[in-house]
Amino acid sequence: MLDEVTITRAIVTTYLEKFSRALDLDVAIVGAGPSGLTAGYYLAKAGRKVGLFEKKLSVGGGMLGGGMLFNRIVVQDEALPILEELGIRTTAFEPGYHTADAVEAMGCLVYRAANAGLEVFNCISVEDVVFKDSRVCGLVINWSPVESAGLHVDPLTLRARFVLDATGHGADVVSRLVRKMGVRLLTETGSMMGEKSMDAHLGERHAVENTREAYPGLFVSGMAANAVFGGYRMGPIFGGMFLSGHKAARLILEGL
Amino acid sequence: MLDEVTITRAIVTTYLEKFSRALDLDVAIVGAGPSGLTAGYYLAKAGRKVGLFEKKLSVGGGMLGGGMLFNRIVVQDEALPILEELGIRTTAFEPGYHTADAVEAMGCLVYRAANAGLEVFNCISVEDVVFKDSRVCGLVINWSPVESAGLHVDPLTLRARFVLDATGHGADVVSRLVRKMGVRLLTETGSMMGEKSMDAHLGERHAVENTREAYPGLFVSGMAANAVFGGYRMGPIFGGMFLSGHKAARLILEGL
Amino acid sequence: MLDEVTITRAIVTTYLEKFSRALDLDVAIVGAGPSGLTAGYYLAKAGRKVGLFEKKLSVGGGMLGGGMLFNRIVVQDEALPILEELGIRTTAFEPGYHTADAVEAMGCLVYRAANAGLEVFNCISVEDVVFKDSRVCGLVINWSPVESAGLHVDPLTLRARFVLDATGHGADVVSRLVRKMGVRLLTETGSMMGEKSMDAHLGERHAVENTREAYPGLFVSGMAANAVFGGYRMGPIFGGMFLSGHKAARLILEGL
Amino acid sequence: MLDEVTITRAIVTTYLEKFSRALDLDVAIVGAGPSGLTAGYYLAKAGRKVGLFEKKLSVGGGMLGGGMLFNRIVVQDEALPILEELGIRTTAFEPGYHTADAVEAMGCLVYRAANAGLEVFNCISVEDVVFKDSRVCGLVINWSPVESAGLHVDPLTLRARFVLDATGHGADVVSRLVRKMGVRLLTETGSMMGEKSMDAHLGERHAVENTREAYPGLFVSGMAANAVFGGYRMGPIFGGMFLSGHKAARLILEGL
Amino acid sequence: MLDEVTITRAIVTTYLEKFSRALDLDVAIVGAGPSGLTAGYYLAKAGRKVGLFEKKLSVGGGMLGGGMLFNRIVVQDEALPILEELGIRTTAFEPGYHTADAVEAMGCLVYRAANAGLEVFNCISVEDVVFKDSRVCGLVINWSPVESAGLHVDPLTLRARFVLDATGHGADVVSRLVRKMGVRLLTETGSMMGEKSMDAHLGERHAVENTREAYPGLFVSGMAANAVFGGYRMGPIFGGMFLSGHKAARLILEGL
Amino acid sequence: MLDEVTITRAIVTTYLEKFSRALDLDVAIVGAGPSGLTAGYYLAKAGRKVGLFEKKLSVGGGMLGGGMLFNRIVVQDEALPILEELGIRTTAFEPGYHTADAVEAMGCLVYRAANAGLEVFNCISVEDVVFKDSRVCGLVINWSPVESAGLHVDPLTLRARFVLDATGHGADVVSRLVRKMGVRLLTETGSMMGEKSMDAHLGERHAVENTREAYPGLFVSGMAANAVFGGYRMGPIFGGMFLSGHKAARLILEGL
Amino acid sequence: MLDEVTITRAIVTTYLEKFSRALDLDVAIVGAGPSGLTAGYYLAKAGRKVGLFEKKLSVGGGMLGGGMLFNRIVVQDEALPILEELGIRTTAFEPGYHTADAVEAMGCLVYRAANAGLEVFNCISVEDVVFKDSRVCGLVINWSPVESAGLHVDPLTLRARFVLDATGHGADVVSRLVRKMGVRLLTETGSMMGEKSMDAHLGERHAVENTREAYPGLFVSGMAANAVFGGYRMGPIFGGMFLSGHKAARLILEGL
Amino acid sequence: MLDEVTITRAIVTTYLEKFSRALDLDVAIVGAGPSGLTAGYYLAKAGRKVGLFEKKLSVGGGMLGGGMLFNRIVVQDEALPILEELGIRTTAFEPGYHTADAVEAMGCLVYRAANAGLEVFNCISVEDVVFKDSRVCGLVINWSPVESAGLHVDPLTLRARFVLDATGHGADVVSRLVRKMGVRLLTETGSMMGEKSMDAHLGERHAVENTREAYPGLFVSGMAANAVFGGYRMGPIFGGMFLSGHKAARLILEGL
Repeated sequence: MLDEVTITRAIVTTYLEKFSRALDLDVAIVGAGPSGLTAGYYLAKAGRKVGLFEKKLSVGGGMLGGGMLFNRIVVQDEALPILEELGIRTTAFEPGYHTADAVEAMGCLVYRAANAGLEVFNCISVEDVVFKDSRVCGLVINWSPVESAGLHVDPLTLRARFVLDATGHGADVVSRLVRKMGVRLLTETGSMMGEKSMDAHLGERHAVENTREAYPGLFVSGMAANAVFGGYRMGPIFGGMFLSGHKAARLILEGL
Repeated sequence: MLDEVTITRAIVTTYLEKFSRALDLDVAIVGAGPSGLTAGYYLAKAGRKVGLFEKKLSVGGGMLGGGMLFNRIVVQDEALPILEELGIRTTAFEPGYHTADAVEAMGCLVYRAANAGLEVFNCISVEDVVFKDSRVCGLVINWSPVESAGLHVDPLTLRARFVLDATGHGADVVSRLVRKMGVRLLTETGSMMGEKSMDAHLGERHAVENTREAYPGLFVSGMAANAVFGGYRMGPIFGGMFLSGHKAARLILEGL
Repeated sequence: MLDEVTITRAIVTTYLEKFSRALDLDVAIVGAGPSGLTAGYYLAKAGRKVGLFEKKLSVGGGMLGGGMLFNRIVVQDEALPILEELGIRTTAFEPGYHTADAVEAMGCLVYRAANAGLEVFNCISVEDVVFKDSRVCGLVINWSPVESAGLHVDPLTLRARFVLDATGHGADVVSRLVRKMGVRLLTETGSMMGEKSMDAHLGERHAVENTREAYPGLFVSGMAANAVFGGYRMGPIFGGMFLSGHKAARLILEGL
Repeated sequence: MLDEVTITRAIVTTYLEKFSRALDLDVAIVGAGPSGLTAGYYLAKAGRKVGLFEKKLSVGGGMLGGGMLFNRIVVQDEALPILEELGIRTTAFEPGYHTADAVEAMGCLVYRAANAGLEVFNCISVEDVVFKDSRVCGLVINWSPVESAGLHVDPLTLRARFVLDATGHGADVVSRLVRKMGVRLLTETGSMMGEKSMDAHLGERHAVENTREAYPGLFVSGMAANAVFGGYRMGPIFGGMFLSGHKAARLILEGL
Repeated sequence: MLDEVTITRAIVTTYLEKFSRALDLDVAIVGAGPSGLTAGYYLAKAGRKVGLFEKKLSVGGGMLGGGMLFNRIVVQDEALPILEELGIRTTAFEPGYHTADAVEAMGCLVYRAANAGLEVFNCISVEDVVFKDSRVCGLVINWSPVESAGLHVDPLTLRARFVLDATGHGADVVSRLVRKMGVRLLTETGSMMGEKSMDAHLGERHAVENTREAYPGLFVSGMAANAVFGGYRMGPIFGGMFLSGHKAARLILEGL
Repeated sequence: MLDEVTITRAIVTTYLEKFSRALDLDVAIVGAGPSGLTAGYYLAKAGRKVGLFEKKLSVGGGMLGGGMLFNRIVVQDEALPILEELGIRTTAFEPGYHTADAVEAMGCLVYRAANAGLEVFNCISVEDVVFKDSRVCGLVINWSPVESAGLHVDPLTLRARFVLDATGHGADVVSRLVRKMGVRLLTETGSMMGEKSMDAHLGERHAVENTREAYPGLFVSGMAANAVFGGYRMGPIFGGMFLSGHKAARLILEGL
Repeated sequence: MLDEVTITRAIVTTYLEKFSRALDLDVAIVGAGPSGLTAGYYLAKAGRKVGLFEKKLSVGGGMLGGGMLFNRIVVQDEALPILEELGIRTTAFEPGYHTADAVEAMGCLVYRAANAGLEVFNCISVEDVVFKDSRVCGLVINWSPVESAGLHVDPLTLRARFVLDATGHGADVVSRLVRKMGVRLLTETGSMMGEKSMDAHLGERHAVENTREAYPGLFVSGMAANAVFGGYRMGPIFGGMFLSGHKAARLILEGL
Repeated sequence: MLDEVTITRAIVTTYLEKFSRALDLDVAIVGAGPSGLTAGYYLAKAGRKVGLFEKKLSVGGGMLGGGMLFNRIVVQDEALPILEELGIRTTAFEPGYHTADAVEAMGCLVYRAANAGLEVFNCISVEDVVFKDSRVCGLVINWSPVESAGLHVDPLTLRARFVLDATGHGADVVSRLVRKMGVRLLTETGSMMGEKSMDAHLGERHAVENTREAYPGLFVSGMAANAVFGGYRMGPIFGGMFLSGHKAARLILEGL
């Protein structure tokens, strides 16, 4: 005889444990796109305490649309080893180009990352960062429906040794930091350099090159990396996203 | 040297092949929640040609919210074998109650279903059914952003030997059929009986019992089953959803 | 030396002449989709005084989307003579099926109809009909942006010996008449019978069969015919629309 | 016996052929107003491979409103030869001023352009350009309903030897290029100079004079030309639009 | 030296006096269109204590639009004496038809009514009526911006010996009364009979004939009269509105 | 040295304790208006375990607006003892009428109720009831911003021996129960009888008389009582609300 | 027997005459608030050909709200002669302060101005100015519902020897001119100086002092004068508005 | 026998008295959050004539949400004496940290402040300040629903010796003053310095330190103090808010 109150207690109790574990993290990732999830997978696999915060209810949304809603994605040779490690099936198209099913790829990436120990918190918006001693050292979070309803409700806070901004084109965490603290970033100009027009080849290369620390305690990956350090956009080829997430994990592991 | 046009061709070409395969299906499932995906998994595993059409860009959205955004779900003993087959990790809470991580569970379910051969089409709204000889025999589909933008654009059509309405509380396919054709359903009253208030125990039992054919060619599963045949709602316990999807697959396989 | 006020006078003066001519028409067509434009073409060609009123700024909008935004349309053999008369190029696909470019087809149809003498008034919403002696005998019109802005502004009125409702799925003129006057239509049940689910074959046949007088003074064509007399929908095949418009013109010419 | 799946296949197959042909163009025109369509007509007539991308479902929308919804347009003597070549009927108003029916004119222009070989893609928004070696060499496109729904979906890409920005007052392509790449335009100031207030005489002259290359690989015509190079607006006189489109075609043909 | 606080006190003090006078009225009119204002003019002129409540900030809005924003109105011979008494200039058009400037007519009517003693309260929505002993005997009012903001704020109340519903097509007061109290109206059917399609001749005649008591204590005038007792609509001819307001005043004066 | 994570832990931990206590209640009150808060005060004072669930972030909102935003309220003699017990200051106006400051009154009521032990949960919407053995025995709750954002997220559940619907005009809990379960209420007609027009005297009397059990396990108070059992509305006099809350508490205490 | 088509013809014909007269004006006033209407009254009374263009359907809207919806206005001694000339009744409040009924005042002002010969065009938005030889010499107008619907429809144009911007706080005509032409205004700084905070005394004085030519051919009055030349705001005292309108008329008459 | 009109008179009369008292204040506080209410409590307790203006219908809204809707708040040792004086119950969590119930705390604070003599005006938006002799000396107010409805209605005005901006993150009064008058503030830079990212420890300290005069006649408290003078944010710990309100009252009392 199933009992509603036991179901409620089971959910509330185990979520509270998960939430409490996340109050003091090695790494807090913001954004559940491909680069954030890949970074989360490698960090969790390395035994680190890592949480990922996504403002939507769904995870990995953008990747699911393929190109113009044709839900297939393309990856180049360099990224194949990562897809193979994760178990995502690919099909060769032309030399150097492989396709995968967008839905299958995202399901697999989410599953592998969570299974490796990444704790994902969805419907959470990151309002701000904790900032002490000229360093980013945590996140200020809220339920995202609270934000979209325009309600005046205070956030809560968590501590993290490193934050990874994997929020895509907007580079939301970095741009919020710049707006609120007026800091000088570790870019050529000291400020956000902006994403450029499309050049798939350069865009893919830049996404990996630009994956690095943008401010003490704060790394960037994926399209956020190109938005912060100035790189081309690349469209529905996702190899660079996987490679960027992988590199972000490696750099942060070195820092921990 | 990556080339944008080759990337575009790779996506368009492979999507067209996927789309073309879906024009004549054994089973067309509507709705990418847990019961629809589970049904899709078992039908694909049985070698059937099965496509799933979801109006959102994301898949499995509702399950991801756990209860009140506390993203954990509960399953009862009866459903454990299905979760084990899929590879979803669970933790015992109290005798008879197990919890799982909502994000991991959904990622896994999506991955396993797609990997088994289910072809998922997201951002597709099902506007209507094809109806011939007093039988549902296909779907009338459109891009869902076209519908949300209120644009006047004609749909396209696909043929399917069976349709499964797994659209949740609204039972969208069944209710559209009733509204447009005025048919008498295979329910006690001949019309949609409506979802009831909450009783988790009865709700779970009803979701499985009500999983059956609602009209020649058209099955229902999950909360749509309770909405059509009249059952209680059950909240964030998901065993019934997995079992309902499993049963839907079994019944349809018998019909094929 | 071009002068702004002369330009303004040229437009206002010639529009007023056009508007004045439309105050007493042989036929007032509502809706600039394929059936309404085809009817307008044949009526104008027959020398009748015919005006067409469309609530959007654009004309022929729905046809332009092809199926799911793939902007090609299909026509069957029976309708080929009409397309040939209009000058729309078609390509054979499979026996019995021909395709045309949606944009070219609509441009051509609009051009031929206007060139034949059809006067088109766009951005005009038809709020109601003039009703005297148990007969529809005119239209009550307003600027459609006035209506969409919810402004309280009175309409103007025009007289017509016959009105053709070619407004598509909604059958706006007929449904407004029923709601305001509570009249009994010339359908089997006396009321609007509603469009059915999809059956392309029956839908095409019904669209032509249902093209007739729905109430003294008021004809229906295209999807409005199926909505009023109860017919199947047919998706992005447009032969029935051209044939329905042709038949509507013929029936009305007989009545004039 | 018409079959829904054959209709669907006919549309999808022929659209894919059309779409594939457009992946590598001589000229990609953005915007289906009078200058873009006129340019498309002359380029197609010259045998070039030319595609036109319009974000609305409808084509030629603005011209259809005449002035203040009085749907007549004015053209001056200089543009008459173009209207005569296209087959648009005009009526003399005062010496130097001719009027035409807005609906007939647009239908005719669309029809002639498509018939000459221009391939029109509607409901497509141009998100960005492809940019290589300091030159615009393609478009980044998406379904426009995807954009209006705010969905996070990647675009696709096409290559073109020349791009023509005929998007009207906003000069969308040029302004996007400036915002994303920070380039210096071929204008007097190096940046967009903005449309001025109204002077019909100067506006018409400027629209033609300003029709030229705004950045390597990127031309402008119509009101976009005035917005980029700084010209007056002119209201509902359309001769300059036809002449501008004609000039744009001539300049681009010289460049090919 | 002008002082802000004195200005504020002047307004608040004199408004409160005006508001207090309105708490116990001979007649409360709802709606500041032509029939309501005309009734208010004649009632005030007869020395009665009469208040008018209008939900918009502006008064007489609909009349200002003429027909299709062409801001002229038409009146027939029968209504000329009223316009002459008010001082509205008219111009003969054809025998039996006179035109007036919409803006001038409304300004004059508002001015004459207020000058005669009618107290107008704008931005006030009438939420309900006071109902005692099977009779309407007052209004329940609120600020209309409170209502449009969806704020939960209680209304205030005023007493009136008679209420006149001059709210136009919706007959808001009557329809609210029917919905809340389920009463039987003094119409042929006992319920609201609804406005019909257009017949200017009958519409004008009905508007006057239908001006009478709809329920004890509650009269109707103008289009509300046709909506309640079932009459045709008439478009931008306003003689019937003036005559209806005049008749309403006469009937209510008899009742007082 | 204040620490963010300790602040977060303090809030999460103590809220969870509060939430857990609320999973099994003697009484669950829905709606934080005056009748709900008064009932909560008396039930908590009697030592019962009572929780109140309010969908807005704020509590007592409607009372704060006084009448038409003039933020004063009126109470009659009968209710004075309750205001005196709570400590709300009143001023005599005319014999039988007392006024109080709306803001002070609501602050006081909220404070006294919470201080007496009522646990208030705001921003919580009650989606449904738990229904077993033909009796209401709990609530189905969710974050209200989740609902207003239209997110598909499952609710949680709590058990209560009695539920009090104090949701005001809509009687949300009762109307939801009727819609979902089709039950027959304990009213004269078996269904909701609807709020009537205004009669302050009868409205106040009815609000108290109608405060009773509407269905086994489910009581109603305040305006919800009038909406369910059919009573007049009364405007900004609040004595009846306090008396209704008091009576609801007394009746439920008898039932416990 | 009233005839709908004659009514329509009466309106269209007389409006066209009115519209045609307005194509070549002595003065074009923008905005139907108190200063614009007062200026219009005096200019028309002086026999000038003057038109007023208002974007709302209603005229004089802001004045109707009094202060905080308390619909009374205040005027000081200096403005009394103007109110007396117009026939607006006032009541002395304290020495130097008089009150008037907001509704009566506006009705009277509209009536007197129209009666004196001012031609008012409502629901017309002024999109831009005609600009020739470094001088404003006309208006670019459109239906305002076209603008609020975001439709792409060209405007029409009229010529005027002087334009008066009486659009209130936004000074819409001046700010549009600055944005489009980048001209230097006749203010101290050459650009718009902005309205200041409140000082009723200075605000009233400034409104009159700042009433002057802002650019060759373009005058400002009322709050637009303070917004352009930098003045305080004054709240619900309207003497300055009447005096400003009067002065604007005098200055323009000198210029004509 | 309760009478509606007496109820209305009671409310209108006593509100007018309250409103009239507020036209000439010692202190006008803007914003009903914790710092504004605390300041109001201490100023009223000291016998000053003090009014508080809040744009929402509800008071103290933000505090009610605790952190992330978990409606508990935290206070540190330093603020305990204030909570004890007010009567808010607290519970020790860890050394230095105390928790309180958010709803109870706010109810208590509102009640104590109103009871001490603070007059609260809700649903009032502060549009601007009165500014004379280089000093803020009053408020320009309106109904906030008028503002949210975008209605053009003039405000009213009140005089105050001091204004306290307690509007939170936006510092609405200060930022409006800067925008309209271009004044130099008493901050380090002369302009608003902006709120920083989160550091709970520094944020709490800054909120108190920054509580001071921002411009002659205008003080700031709470988060507005940090926004104006540049301080960190602190999340759901409220001690600093109470202390800031206390300090603001003390400083203003010194100034009076």
